[in-house]
Amino acid sequence: MVDGPGTMTAIGIAAPGGPDMLVPERRAVPRARAGEVLVRVAFAGVNRPDVLQRLGAYPPPAGASDIPGLEMAGEVVALGEAVAGDWLGRRVCALVTGGGYAEYCLARAEHCLPVPEGLSLSEAAALPETLFTVWHNLFERGQAREGETLLVHGGTSGIGTMAIKLGKLFGLTIIVTCGSDGKCDAALAIGADHAINYRTDDFGAVVSALTPAGANVILDMVAGPYTQRNLDCLAEDGRLVTIAVLGGAKAEIDMARLLVRRHTLTGSTLRARPDGFKARLAETIARDVWPYVADGRLRPAMDRIFPLEQAAEAHRRMEGGEHIGKIVLAAGEDQT
Amino acid sequence: MVDGPGTMTAIGIAAPGGPDMLVPERRAVPRARAGEVLVRVAFAGVNRPDVLQRLGAYPPPAGASDIPGLEMAGEVVALGEAVAGDWLGRRVCALVTGGGYAEYCLARAEHCLPVPEGLSLSEAAALPETLFTVWHNLFERGQAREGETLLVHGGTSGIGTMAIKLGKLFGLTIIVTCGSDGKCDAALAIGADHAINYRTDDFGAVVSALTPAGANVILDMVAGPYTQRNLDCLAEDGRLVTIAVLGGAKAEIDMARLLVRRHTLTGSTLRARPDGFKARLAETIARDVWPYVADGRLRPAMDRIFPLEQAAEAHRRMEGGEHIGKIVLAAGEDQT
Repeated sequence: MVDGPGTMTAIGIAAPGGPDMLVPERRAVPRARAGEVLVRVAFAGVNRPDVLQRLGAYPPPAGASDIPGLEMAGEVVALGEAVAGDWLGRRVCALVTGGGYAEYCLARAEHCLPVPEGLSLSEAAALPETLFTVWHNLFERGQAREGETLLVHGGTSGIGTMAIKLGKLFGLTIIVTCGSDGKCDAALAIGADHAINYRTDDFGAVVSALTPAGANVILDMVAGPYTQRNLDCLAEDGRLVTIAVLGGAKAEIDMARLLVRRHTLTGSTLRARPDGFKARLAETIARDVWPYVADGRLRPAMDRIFPLEQAAEAHRRMEGGEHIGKIVLAAGEDQT
Repeated sequence: MVDGPGTMTAIGIAAPGGPDMLVPERRAVPRARAGEVLVRVAFAGVNRPDVLQRLGAYPPPAGASDIPGLEMAGEVVALGEAVAGDWLGRRVCALVTGGGYAEYCLARAEHCLPVPEGLSLSEAAALPETLFTVWHNLFERGQAREGETLLVHGGTSGIGTMAIKLGKLFGLTIIVTCGSDGKCDAALAIGADHAINYRTDDFGAVVSALTPAGANVILDMVAGPYTQRNLDCLAEDGRLVTIAVLGGAKAEIDMARLLVRRHTLTGSTLRARPDGFKARLAETIARDVWPYVADGRLRPAMDRIFPLEQAAEAHRRMEGGEHIGKIVLAAGEDQT
């Protein structure tokens, strides 16, 4: 076990509320427990659940840091028990249950992925949350297969841009919805095959026109009234995977249609899953996806980098909805 | 190709309506097309979809006979092209898209299963529809695994009794709901571990008391208000498989709960599936289930046998809801 430094800057949530509730604080640097590494954070990714947590609507799971931040990248500077000495000094990115908005952050060693040559630490910090989420929900839960058509809402969000990129790498045809023509253009530039402006077009009608059999898989974060609208343009044997309920939790669905068309409606959240599940997922991603990261074919769509102290500004940007791709916070000096 | 006889008695549907619309008629014996066998029907199973078809609510799929009846057993008496000669004289039961309520019925050879020694033809006729339906929805779609808990509604129905028997053979704990204490006793006698009288008890509360983690798989034919009630007593990662909407098609569900608990909501209908799907299913059942039929460990729960001409009476019994297990029609002389 190697000790780390004493205190650090971290972003606390002063009270549930708006972006200004995100306040830089001095905190003790956490000490790595068995199986954990301490990472000197270079960059931390900002994700929609962080906003919900700030609002008080998404409390950290038991045992997690109260500091927001579900992913980060940096250098391993201290080790807990049962972590091999050669982890020291490694550049890693990791999925964490909290604590990313800080100069130092703990991660379980088996939830880390190595940062390969050519991947900047800011890009690395932008990968874990959306990559783990999209991989699990699209390919494991949603059973997306080469040649199928995927519909993704929020095509320029962190999740949406990752779904486009990952989907294209694995042979899917991608239709996305976005809230403006400009975002549609951005989604197409990122790799989507079709982009629908949901403010000016009925996405279901457009999907049905583009692919009369319907989409095989839909990745949805809206729920509410979108649930049946999604089912209406889902192919026979199609899978609707819901990962957030930004449009409301209550959904009225037509069960007769669901069973006649043999639809599957499912969903999941990532943060509360046990360590073992995330370790298994990290292993799968290391094997099946990381080669694409290593050879440069998979890079996150990057929006903007804010200094850690300006986390409030980063949240305002996310809530403003003008971002395209990932917002990250720069915590260290190594701001590449 | 071997020719069959000329005319036969069959049950026609005079017009959409009550049981009396089921009228014995003289019909031409159908001629086996390529890949089909003609079966001299000894017994035909009666199923809930037959009632819906009689009411005009479940039209036969394209190419299917207009005569009701989705399963039957008897002797192969004529062959279409591309069926090997040694099929002649075989005793088989088969899943059919219609035509079972008759003295002769066509079946695709690959949808037939052999009637082993010790299985009566009346029992054989009672197997295919529920066995194919329960197998596919419980083990394939619902991914039920040994050691899991299954909740089945309509515990004394044809589907319910088959789910109990099949579930017990494959190591599941079975909870059923029934509409009376007498039916609960019957379901327990058939093998259910727990039976809930849904008229006197809140099934969800009882399931949650019996298995606090919730049921892993639920086989539902009610839908409507049952959908959320089912989800409320479904375990994390549980699967709700709906095969009919007897309680109504519209369901309001809580998507937030669905995704937090990682539920899967799916369903299917059997009749409209392509021949190849049913052939694949028949093959799986021949391999994984038929040994239990052959050695006597799997027998259908039998309710009552009516002569073919009394099909109306058989439907009245099914709609009366007093039956326990399968109702069959006797079409031939070999009424065992």
